Parts: sequence; structure tokens; C-alpha cells
Amino acid sequence: MNVAVIGLGLIGGSLLQALTAAGHRATGYDADPATRELARAGGWTVSGSVAEAVAGAELVALAVPLPVLPDVIAQLAGHDGLITDVTSVKAPVRDLAEKHGVRRFVGGHPMAGKETSGFAAADPALFAGCAWVLCLEPGRTDLDDWLMLAELFTGMGARVVPVTAAEHDRAVAQISHVPHLLAAALALQLTDNPLAGTLAAGSFRDGTRVAATRAELIVAMCGGNAAAVAKALEDVIGDLQEMAEALAIDPVRLLTPPIDAAGELRRQWPAAGGGAEQVPAEVDRLLALGRAGGWVTEVAENRAGVLAKRPETGRNTS
Amino acid sequence: MNVAVIGLGLIGGSLLQALTAAGHRATGYDADPATRELARAGGWTVSGSVAEAVAGAELVALAVPLPVLPDVIAQLAGHDGLITDVTSVKAPVRDLAEKHGVRRFVGGHPMAGKETSGFAAADPALFAGCAWVLCLEPGRTDLDDWLMLAELFTGMGARVVPVTAAEHDRAVAQISHVPHLLAAALALQLTDNPLAGTLAAGSFRDGTRVAATRAELIVAMCGGNAAAVAKALEDVIGDLQEMAEALAIDPVRLLTPPIDAAGELRRQWPAAGGGAEQVPAEVDRLLALGRAGGWVTEVAENRAGVLAKRPETGRNTS
Repeated sequence: MNVAVIGLGLIGGSLLQALTAAGHRATGYDADPATRELARAGGWTVSGSVAEAVAGAELVALAVPLPVLPDVIAQLAGHDGLITDVTSVKAPVRDLAEKHGVRRFVGGHPMAGKETSGFAAADPALFAGCAWVLCLEPGRTDLDDWLMLAELFTGMGARVVPVTAAEHDRAVAQISHVPHLLAAALALQLTDNPLAGTLAAGSFRDGTRVAATRAELIVAMCGGNAAAVAKALEDVIGDLQEMAEALAIDPVRLLTPPIDAAGELRRQWPAAGGGAEQVPAEVDRLLALGRAGGWVTEVAENRAGVLAKRPETGRNTS
Repeated sequence: MNVAVIGLGLIGGSLLQALTAAGHRATGYDADPATRELARAGGWTVSGSVAEAVAGAELVALAVPLPVLPDVIAQLAGHDGLITDVTSVKAPVRDLAEKHGVRRFVGGHPMAGKETSGFAAADPALFAGCAWVLCLEPGRTDLDDWLMLAELFTGMGARVVPVTAAEHDRAVAQISHVPHLLAAALALQLTDNPLAGTLAAGSFRDGTRVAATRAELIVAMCGGNAAAVAKALEDVIGDLQEMAEALAIDPVRLLTPPIDAAGELRRQWPAAGGGAEQVPAEVDRLLALGRAGGWVTEVAENRAGVLAKRPETGRNTS
């Protein structure tokens, strides 16, 4: 397949390399000349403009940061081929694509990352085993387009998760965006408090690790998914307030049950997949699979169905 | 020195081994016969009762879990020698020792731990480089007793931090106890939400790691330090509520400053120590050192002073 990858940071760079490794004709582009030079020097195919990169591409993968996405999508308004993206929020991007009259759009979000960023950190194996959300909107997404992407990404070893944009945005607010705010709130406890910094050990280190992420990335991520983040944050604050009450009244009787439940959920995570099952390639069946925490491992050759797995309670992979 | 170590879990077992390695005569005791047997089989000196272990000991180190501590302290009511402990809360333990008429008590808390527990996980090198709080209460703690312990623990490579029990309890609520509650609140987001579990990755993994700790340990730790934990939890909830408001009004303008400040605090942590300095062995000077995040690295031979370090801004050790 002819694929254009726009944006050659960690994700875009890794995608360019993974696609090439899988035998596709992948062409990259990055707005930064130094990044283009770095990629070319590594032997990868790189164009000098967005227009040149997407000419003749059957698929355009937008791997630019969220704040830049509107500009890039505007440039692709008249594009014929399929377009996907890799940003951390899906409903606003879906609406943006519609606004700009993009005809064939399937939003995506690979749950992959590293401490490091940029093309220099790119790795063609980055997506092996990672969950890759592909949005499926009843009545809007073309199922053939969705299956084509599912085939492409499962071919790189990703676990493709079919969900609506709204379901995605709610889940990532809970397990990715809010965790960054919790980490920041915890790190702020060190303000004018050097003793606390000296006594801090493992629980502080792990609880604050992602607070070291660049502030503009955290703000863009949370701000771009503001409604879902607000709701998830409200839920977490509610749980913390209940814990505070439990602590004030009777810790052993009232605090033990939620702490116990949380420990059980954590010990069961991440769940291993159960046996492989066949799921017909129907929008409702695929969405039910995603809602159950399941993922597609392979698209059948005739695209009439997929092979899938579901999380199996009591079996975790760590 | 003749030392009795009561309780041979991870901390007590490691202490027994570290003391022996440092040339002291250390005798252990554990209420669990199998643990005593395990320690004896390893060649360590183990007594059959608390009374036998503490007979003739110049120092008794209580390394039993917090809920058991009242019983053990009650047994030591008439004991002549110096007593210390290693539990995660200091004001209640100080009051407990006073209530039972323990004459020479200096509360301690080594900030050391591992994922594993029990004597089988004990390691004589566990305390090398770890911060070891030793409580110093103006007008109450005997400075000679404090210096003797500081000498003992710095001799094992620990960084001894002089603080009052109240200062300790406030700091550990912030950087150890509340982090366990935040981790639990985050893990609870997976309740009836398998999709979130499937999409969860690094930020969730790190943010929830300590939620897998045994519930009774978390509840005992937070319940035993309830007032300080309630205050720190209120602060964190307040910060999260401010972030929620910032998100609703103008993320870039209002959310960026706190996220930026948090990132800066995290990137500066853990701070490396600056140059060695001499501090006179006076209660006020030692407490000022602790409040500034400093620690004692060595006690001078005549015990008139200590060698110390302070965290140096802009130098971190990770």
C-alpha cells in the first residue's frame, strides 16, 4: 500500500519505519527541515511538502501534535484517499475532519509511547502488542475503510480496539489524561517543602513520573478532551472525598473496602487475552467487542470477519 | 553494641543482618515461629521471646507492624535501655511510648522498602543511601541517645534526617500515604470498565503501582496518621479542583502554570546533596537542617557535631 506519514516524531517516525518494514511504500514528511534531513540520512523516503507526500497515497496517516492538526487537515480538504490520525483525542478530531469536508476519515490512537521523543527515538517495533484504537462510528465510518486499517495495524502486531470516538475519549480521560493531573497535584506537594522531597521514595517516584512530561503536551491533551477529563476528574475527586470521610469516621471498616477493590483491580491488570474467537465484521459486533475490553488480532482475508480476543479475568500479563 | 531487633520482616530482618555486618551483637525475635526458624537456619542469632531478646540490650529496635506496636511497647514498660522503632507514623508512637512509661525512646523511620516482604527478602544493604528519619523533640528527646542512633544508622550508609514527629507525619502523609490513596482512586476507574483497562498504559501503570499493596497495610498506614493524611488529602483535592476550573475556563492560560511548576519540581527530584558541612550537635541546628531537607552523613567522634548535606537545587540524582 502507498502510505504518506505526515509528522515524523516518535509515533510518525516509528510508523514510517514499521510500514516500510511490513513491505509498504511509505513516504514521510515533517514540517521541521532538520527532522526531514535526519530521516533521509537514515535511508527513509521523505518528501519536501505535504502535497508531494500525499500525492497518490491510498492512506495518509497524520502523526502531528494535536494543536497543529487543524492546519494539516485544512490542507487535505480535497484529498480523495483514506485519512487516519494518531492523536490522543478522537471526537474533536472527527468533527474537525467533517468540518473540512474530509470524505474518508477513520480516527486512530496507538497507546504507545516512550520517555524519549522525536524521530531519533523512533522504533519500527513500537506498536508490537500495543492497543491501537480505531474509531468506528455507526452510520458514519465506512466499514471497509476501518477493516483496511485494522488489517494494516494488526499486521504490525498492534491489538486493534474498535470503539466510538466518545467511548475512546471517556476511557483515555480516565486512564491517561487524569493520571497526568494526579501526578502533577502530587508533585506540587513539594512546593516550598524540601523535607518532603528528601523523604519521598518509591510511591512518590512512581506517582509523579508522568508529571515530568512537557507541560504543553499535558495541557494540549487535557484541554483537547476537556469535557471527558472534567467528568473523570470529578469522579476521582469524589472517590478521594469518600476516602477522606472514611478516614475520619472509621478507617478499618470504611476505608478497607475501596482500597481492597482498588488493589484487586490493579493486581488483575493488565489482563491477558483469552482464547481467539471469530467476530463477524459488523459495526455492532465490533463495538460490543471493544466495550468488553476486547481487541482484533487479525482481519480475515475476505474481510467478512475478524479474529479477536477479550480480557480474561484472573489472568494478567505482568 | 548489643542490639535486640523485635520483628523480623523485611525491615527488621535487614536491620538484624546490617547490624551484624557492622560488627554489632544483634539478636532477633519474631512472634512467628517459622520466621524465627528461617532466621536461625540462616545463621542469625534469634531468641525465643521478647524478654530473652531484650535482656542486656543497650538498644531495642521495634520492627513490628504498626497495629502490633502497642502490645510490644507495653511489654517493654520497665525496660532501661534505649528503644527505637521503624514504623511509618511518629507522633502516635511517641505518645504511646510516653503512655507506657518508656524512658528512653527515639522514634525512627527508614524510608526503605521493596516490592517483596518478609525475612526471606531481607537484605543487609537495604539501608545504604536511604533516608532514615530520627525524631528529635525539643525538651523531650535526649540528644545523646539521638546521636548514638544517628551514629549507628549513618554507619550503615543511611542518610539520617532530624525532624520532630509532627514534621515527619506531615511530610510522609504528603509523599507516601496520600500517594497510596491517589493510586487507589485511579485504579478504581477500572470498575466495570474493561475498555479502560485495555487502553491503560504507562501513566496508569505507574500511577497505580502502589495500589497493589496489601489493603490492611495501606489502611493501617493512613489510619495511623489520619489527621496529617486528611490535611494533605484536602490540599491535593484542592489542587485538583483548581485544575478542573482551569480546564473549564482556559486550559492554556490557567492550567499551564501549575502543570509547569509540577514538572519543574519533579524534574529537580530527587535532589543531590551539596558539599559536606559541619553542624553543631544542638537540637535547634539539627532540626533546621532537617526542615531544609538536609541529612546527617556522619557523627563526629566526640559527638559535638555532625557532618551533613543539604539538597542542592538543580542537581538531581536520577
